[in-house]
Amino acid sequence: MFMTTKLLVTQGLEDKLLQFARDRDWEQYYAPRNLLMALVGEVGELAEIFQWMTEAEAADAMRNPETAQRIREEMADVTMYLVRLASVLRLDLDAAVQEKLLSNARKYPPNA
Amino acid sequence: MFMTTKLLVTQGLEDKLLQFARDRDWEQYYAPRNLLMALVGEVGELAEIFQWMTEAEAADAMRNPETAQRIREEMADVTMYLVRLASVLRLDLDAAVQEKLLSNARKYPPNA
Amino acid sequence: MFMTTKLLVTQGLEDKLLQFARDRDWEQYYAPRNLLMALVGEVGELAEIFQWMTEAEAADAMRNPETAQRIREEMADVTMYLVRLASVLRLDLDAAVQEKLLSNARKYPPNA
Amino acid sequence: MFMTTKLLVTQGLEDKLLQFARDRDWEQYYAPRNLLMALVGEVGELAEIFQWMTEAEAADAMRNPETAQRIREEMADVTMYLVRLASVLRLDLDAAVQEKLLSNARKYPPNA
Repeated sequence: MFMTTKLLVTQGLEDKLLQFARDRDWEQYYAPRNLLMALVGEVGELAEIFQWMTEAEAADAMRNPETAQRIREEMADVTMYLVRLASVLRLDLDAAVQEKLLSNARKYPPNA
Repeated sequence: MFMTTKLLVTQGLEDKLLQFARDRDWEQYYAPRNLLMALVGEVGELAEIFQWMTEAEAADAMRNPETAQRIREEMADVTMYLVRLASVLRLDLDAAVQEKLLSNARKYPPNA
Repeated sequence: MFMTTKLLVTQGLEDKLLQFARDRDWEQYYAPRNLLMALVGEVGELAEIFQWMTEAEAADAMRNPETAQRIREEMADVTMYLVRLASVLRLDLDAAVQEKLLSNARKYPPNA
Repeated sequence: MFMTTKLLVTQGLEDKLLQFARDRDWEQYYAPRNLLMALVGEVGELAEIFQWMTEAEAADAMRNPETAQRIREEMADVTMYLVRLASVLRLDLDAAVQEKLLSNARKYPPNA
């Protein structure tokens, strides 16, 4: 396949997070398994927001300003650890996603 | 705050995933808690790749082509469910990340 | 197989947790997916304790009284949601574990 | 506090799992962070079973023999890694649970 267009651009965030780590001498902590466990922790905090909600409440969760704020913070944390992990592994998230989309499209053909 | 530059661009992937779901009548399944549990599942699969590795092995994990392929696939799955969840919640991941970065910078001042 | 001995006894805790829920009108919240998400949340909190530790620090984590206390609390929470989930599903954890041990023993024969 | 009765007995399973590991030279892999990541992996597999279910389907999940079998296997895996982790940390799960129950009872008084 000839990929002309990125579906996902993370470079700005990758640079920012690297600088953030360097300014605090945190690079030493950013080993893959550490970042993966941090990702698990943040996904867990996201789950805690939704754990006692009905499906209807979950669908409307962003209408409550306080809940919306908590969700934004946890979604941001998940995103940042995921992008940081990709950086440390030198993994191109956009390329990985494009490849997986092709694989999924073969595996699950669209309805007629 | 006046944001002039995006750190993270997900629109292309959001559109693609929405189209993918529509073409398969999967939109009905993409409720927030479902997507969150799917995210948990994919983070779990990522953890399984790294669970018995030493830190040194984890740092070199991408050098093994077969392991690298598995990591790319799971990282792609985590990314796609995260972006899909943000879409369904109508949450702007870039804005959420920018806000959290400002908050983190206040909380953890850089070294002198 | 003829099982004469339990490897795991959870009945006391199951009864206690059921009574605890009844006394607070919480039974309505204890649906399987809710309990599973609560389990995810507690496993996430456990991961947060260990995420920046080296392997050596993790092996000694219980020697620090404050860290040990946090670990005990999160391990207790994980255990209680797991046992509650098994109750709600009417799943016999001891039988499930015994069956899985037999299956694992067939799959991974011991060293000679 | 004077504890006269155990709510949870795990000794049989702890002994069995230790023997299982010794017979396969697996003790070297059973470091706390490894076991924690393995626990995350198994919780993820459990989440995958329930991720697209409605609440009603989840409540009836054990009526389908094939689904019930998968749930029993994943619940067993979660239980075994949790108990193994407690062993490796030399943490008494029953004592941890009893302490947390007292703390929860103080924090959330029962309804009048």
